Amino acid sequence: MDKATAVANPNIAFIKYWGKAHEALNLPANPSLSMNLAGLTTVTTVEFRPGLAADSVVIDGEPAQDQARQRVVAHLDRVRALARTDRRALVASRNDFPAGTGLASSASAFAALTLAAGRAAGLVLDEGALSRLARRASGSACRSVVGGFALWEGDGDETSFARQVAPPSFWELRDLVAIVGREHKGVGSQQGHALAASSPLNAARLEAVPGLLALALDAVRARDLSALGPVVEADALAMHGVMMTSWPSLLYWLPATVAVLRAVRAWREEGLDVFFTLDAGPNVHCLCEAARADEAERRLRRLPGVLDVLASGPGGGVRLVDYDLF
Amino acid sequence: MDKATAVANPNIAFIKYWGKAHEALNLPANPSLSMNLAGLTTVTTVEFRPGLAADSVVIDGEPAQDQARQRVVAHLDRVRALARTDRRALVASRNDFPAGTGLASSASAFAALTLAAGRAAGLVLDEGALSRLARRASGSACRSVVGGFALWEGDGDETSFARQVAPPSFWELRDLVAIVGREHKGVGSQQGHALAASSPLNAARLEAVPGLLALALDAVRARDLSALGPVVEADALAMHGVMMTSWPSLLYWLPATVAVLRAVRAWREEGLDVFFTLDAGPNVHCLCEAARADEAERRLRRLPGVLDVLASGPGGGVRLVDYDLF
Repeated sequence: MDKATAVANPNIAFIKYWGKAHEALNLPANPSLSMNLAGLTTVTTVEFRPGLAADSVVIDGEPAQDQARQRVVAHLDRVRALARTDRRALVASRNDFPAGTGLASSASAFAALTLAAGRAAGLVLDEGALSRLARRASGSACRSVVGGFALWEGDGDETSFARQVAPPSFWELRDLVAIVGREHKGVGSQQGHALAASSPLNAARLEAVPGLLALALDAVRARDLSALGPVVEADALAMHGVMMTSWPSLLYWLPATVAVLRAVRAWREEGLDVFFTLDAGPNVHCLCEAARADEAERRLRRLPGVLDVLASGPGGGVRLVDYDLF
Repeated sequence: MDKATAVANPNIAFIKYWGKAHEALNLPANPSLSMNLAGLTTVTTVEFRPGLAADSVVIDGEPAQDQARQRVVAHLDRVRALARTDRRALVASRNDFPAGTGLASSASAFAALTLAAGRAAGLVLDEGALSRLARRASGSACRSVVGGFALWEGDGDETSFARQVAPPSFWELRDLVAIVGREHKGVGSQQGHALAASSPLNAARLEAVPGLLALALDAVRARDLSALGPVVEADALAMHGVMMTSWPSLLYWLPATVAVLRAVRAWREEGLDVFFTLDAGPNVHCLCEAARADEAERRLRRLPGVLDVLASGPGGGVRLVDYDLF
């Protein structure tokens, strides 16, 4: 079998990855903590087929173009180098959520690609090695390799990968993603990371991360949303403060983004425990306990500007499936 | 004559004042640079009248309550101490713009109160002394004392006041204030200043200010909006990054705030040179040359969520007038 199919979930970071310590190796400027999102999936099939002149990459039914294609081919090259093969591949990938709007599609995409391509190429990689390899393609992909709640730390190429903090079943947390924009963002995360250091606020955020991360880890281990939530909001706003003050300035928010942020805080004052976070995009991730999720989702759907709400519990790690997309 | 009336304009800061080095003296954590706004005025009449049991303070036709009244009385006490009188005063003040929405009503209010009360009490104060006295009531009021473009710097009580960088006639700059909210903000500037230091980003912003201030001063002196604008946007966003990440977090923006920020940047890409800044509130100050002001105002008025646009050129310093509000 030179063909394999893998499924992965994107993840939402509680402590964000923004800025790189090493560009080519995707070593992050700071450790990060995340939860995989069970409700959102990327499925990717890879087949290494003899006689192909070039890799064929199809994403959501369309041939991948330019940078998107190049990133996939570059990652296939990493897998080929490890497997000592020069066969080209057929790749098909499908997301059940909109790409490029802060929903971390590259995380699930490259986690799934790493496992599918690795298996199709005959590599045997443990979770740490998979996470480390996925990191090379997209930093946050290393967290999607690991199921449940994942901590990405480590300083060098060998040690920088994600490890599980707690399995999906540990905590019935919910992430309700309020979709307020579906357009592909102007500046993607990859370019954005390179701008982080241009913000006068970046170093201060990085200095604050270890303290926030320790609080967030304790809160996850204690399943304590009232402790986790304020920390998560603080780091998300710090990251967006860095983004807005980078050069050029990145303003990912839409008007409805602010509407959701304000609504979440107002609901909390009314006793509904919901907290927000945002990735590099306009959509707002709203965290709550499973028992409050229906009420929170109902309220989110009533907000003007909220186009959809995608609900997720904690998702599993990247895994092989026995069907394919061809 | 124990009665005097003064008129003052609020000011918009190009480099912001956020956070204090000395609470009671209103010494700022950083120097700031502003322009007075000719189109917005506060008029204040003060009369020290023998036999009054207490100060009477009427703002926009209503007796001032609680904190607002206390701030005025405390400032009258400063004037009384300088004038060695214990007479109580009648104070009437009127704004022609909405208070408490980031339009710096306290700046014009306390600039006008300082001159009116000082004159009514028989004090003779030069501009520097007026600015210094106004600072004690409200930091940014010291800038409204000075006409045109004002730099507030100085480290101690004696030296911390605003000086003119250029008179109003020096540069036909326009500030178009896009009003997106009229509600009084939840957390006023006075409480907000005290929270600045709780943000992990605050020290980094303060470190960046001297460099930005030097660029902004050069740009004002060269009447170079294309140099001034990016610096002004950068410091405004840095200040809001600090606000959002303070503890508790201050989110002054409304959905329409973001709509204006994005529109301004989009217009700039189309060739209309407009730049934004924001004070501690949701309204967006849009800076442009006088020649572009009509076009910019027309576009602003068409944006959903923009309730009104208040246009100002550079305003004069605080001045006495020969009518009164009684």
